Amino acid sequence: MDPARLTPMPTSPISRRGLFGYAGAAGVGGAAGIVGGRAWGLSDAPTPEPPNRVLGQDYSPYGAQQAGIFTPQSQVAELVAFDLLPATDASALGRLMRVWTGDIAALMSGRPAAGDFAPELAQANVSLTALVGFGPGVFELEGLGPSLPAGFQEIPAMTHDRLEDRWNGGDLLIWVTADDATSVSHAVRRLVSDARPFASRRWTQRGFWRPTDASGAAVTGRNLFGQVDGSANPKGDVLEETVLSTDGWLAGGTQLVVRRIEMNLDTWDEATRDRQEASMGRRLSDGAPLTGESEGDDLDLAATADGSTVIALDAHARLAHPSQNRERRMLRRGLNYTHETVVDGAPVDTSGLIFCAFQANIADQFIPVQRSLDQADALNEWTTAIGSAVFVIPPGFSEGGYVGETLLG
Amino acid sequence: MDPARLTPMPTSPISRRGLFGYAGAAGVGGAAGIVGGRAWGLSDAPTPEPPNRVLGQDYSPYGAQQAGIFTPQSQVAELVAFDLLPATDASALGRLMRVWTGDIAALMSGRPAAGDFAPELAQANVSLTALVGFGPGVFELEGLGPSLPAGFQEIPAMTHDRLEDRWNGGDLLIWVTADDATSVSHAVRRLVSDARPFASRRWTQRGFWRPTDASGAAVTGRNLFGQVDGSANPKGDVLEETVLSTDGWLAGGTQLVVRRIEMNLDTWDEATRDRQEASMGRRLSDGAPLTGESEGDDLDLAATADGSTVIALDAHARLAHPSQNRERRMLRRGLNYTHETVVDGAPVDTSGLIFCAFQANIADQFIPVQRSLDQADALNEWTTAIGSAVFVIPPGFSEGGYVGETLLG
Repeated sequence: MDPARLTPMPTSPISRRGLFGYAGAAGVGGAAGIVGGRAWGLSDAPTPEPPNRVLGQDYSPYGAQQAGIFTPQSQVAELVAFDLLPATDASALGRLMRVWTGDIAALMSGRPAAGDFAPELAQANVSLTALVGFGPGVFELEGLGPSLPAGFQEIPAMTHDRLEDRWNGGDLLIWVTADDATSVSHAVRRLVSDARPFASRRWTQRGFWRPTDASGAAVTGRNLFGQVDGSANPKGDVLEETVLSTDGWLAGGTQLVVRRIEMNLDTWDEATRDRQEASMGRRLSDGAPLTGESEGDDLDLAATADGSTVIALDAHARLAHPSQNRERRMLRRGLNYTHETVVDGAPVDTSGLIFCAFQANIADQFIPVQRSLDQADALNEWTTAIGSAVFVIPPGFSEGGYVGETLLG
Repeated sequence: MDPARLTPMPTSPISRRGLFGYAGAAGVGGAAGIVGGRAWGLSDAPTPEPPNRVLGQDYSPYGAQQAGIFTPQSQVAELVAFDLLPATDASALGRLMRVWTGDIAALMSGRPAAGDFAPELAQANVSLTALVGFGPGVFELEGLGPSLPAGFQEIPAMTHDRLEDRWNGGDLLIWVTADDATSVSHAVRRLVSDARPFASRRWTQRGFWRPTDASGAAVTGRNLFGQVDGSANPKGDVLEETVLSTDGWLAGGTQLVVRRIEMNLDTWDEATRDRQEASMGRRLSDGAPLTGESEGDDLDLAATADGSTVIALDAHARLAHPSQNRERRMLRRGLNYTHETVVDGAPVDTSGLIFCAFQANIADQFIPVQRSLDQADALNEWTTAIGSAVFVIPPGFSEGGYVGETLLG
């Protein structure tokens, strides 16, 4: 496979062309997966495609993978988890998937979905994606038990978890992203409304990300600690091996872990910058490893200075490094959140990261890495998992097909 | 005055040049008020300024007005209201204003504020503005009573209000906007933190808006009913007369009403499109009056068809029209919101509009118009004010000055 094919942050129109493993939408020329992308705010005259744009895109709903896995991160996201209603069996789930597929195909094309109550809110060029996932409860439906993918399981309790049931679990997931919250909100409302006969909303997590630098060029982005977050994501062939399942009906799909990680910004702010950087093993300024020059450099875990390792033994980047985890990897797409709760009548903000990680096999990839971090990660001082959910992400679909058809068809 | 000077949506670099009434930042050439604007995602090569860009801007913190009044709307906003602590007198308030001014000048220039804990989150070209307001409580401080501006008062109770104290009032306001939520969140955190010795947070309202169409061109934008919202905003000379006070220390400043208006999307969706359009007096498709061809057309309130007025007697646009209100106007900047509350353990979303209106004199402008709408507005069926607050917005400041200096200096 062309290593450029799966680079998550495209750096040229050529690498982007085949990036997403999509079939191009009908009638679109060279740039498969990108339909009608145009620079923000420019006039109607066609403009040359800039080298690394991630906002103002249209992605095709069709392809080998669902959009929202390998597509570049956008600015706004909502994840909604649902509980299946008691009457929803595999056949009913298939009906919902056909409805959702129609919704997604329309919304990603900038068209209102069938029955859309606010059709004018459907917009093209907003980088909209809508990803569908199946929680463990789907495999408790009659007839679907034998289709439980290998390695798909809830995350076992970790020492540092303080899970709240309101952020846990879910039988179904939709994960909608776009450049702006009005577009996301409109799409979510349609999908939630169409789910009503089949499933009820369990939780909603709203997040945001800044995927560009001051010049508008694509960057990894930063969490609310100020850290560049996601530098170590796999690229090229390794990315595909990391993410994509080859397991039966799920082949071409993946498995997703969603962890809601509260971050204590107040105590983080009290730590010195040296301590903050040591706990991560990377510089705050640019995300480079403490042993390296730039963000993309690999860690030098053996490097020493003044008799101790430059990257501390409890540094997050060391503990999560593939060399320390039998080459286990995952593809992370984090989202910042700020969430207000009212305590004794006064508003209290909490902040954190909606940590989302794709991998082919949760039991083999996320869980052992997380066990290692749970034991020793220096960042544990400031971070606490308060929610946990897992979803199987079915492969993509073609025009005329529907999401989940290899399981439910 | 050049009528182009105060057009809120600039349509060319020439009209934008003088738009905000700002002094240009030091060292910046022709485009005063816009520093280093550059098209999203383009490479480092300078690109021609597109005709109507509203994202990816830098605005000067200095000028005759604070930024955030006449600057184009951005995508993300947080409004934070504070209660003054008992020990905060006028002198202490002046100290806070000097600190906030330093913060704002830095953050709007893409630089970290003094003592910034996450300096890398300060970004240029994110269209950041931060507006400061004084609530009624400021004029209860010793020595400031005589400075209460004419017409500045709380909004009297209206029949349709269902105000909740948690969204009401406040002695101070900051209103931060930017293209993305990470930038907003970072700026708000700094401002809230620096206020801690002087004031405690009372409420936070988070909103979003989509100020561009699919091509990236500036548009009025839509609320969550799908309505184009803000079409009737004054332009040119009338805008300045509408918004800017000429009253003593407040000259060049303005008065702001913030109403949190819950919108019942479910019952709105049940209404026919005809009924939805009749209740507004404008078309959903493009915001044009039911008597007109395009959004900018004035209403023809006398036009009849089949024996009744085309624009119904209870249509929102009729009741709010200046001709029905002794030419009283206001400048509206709405923000959509979705707010989750947990009821019996289950998440429930509410949606609505953070209605923000600037005018020179609240008693003379907002209140009589609102009384008229409260009596008869057809939209009242689906909308309910659940929060209300008023703030005086001091004039802008120059380098070396500070916000509020004409009151506190």
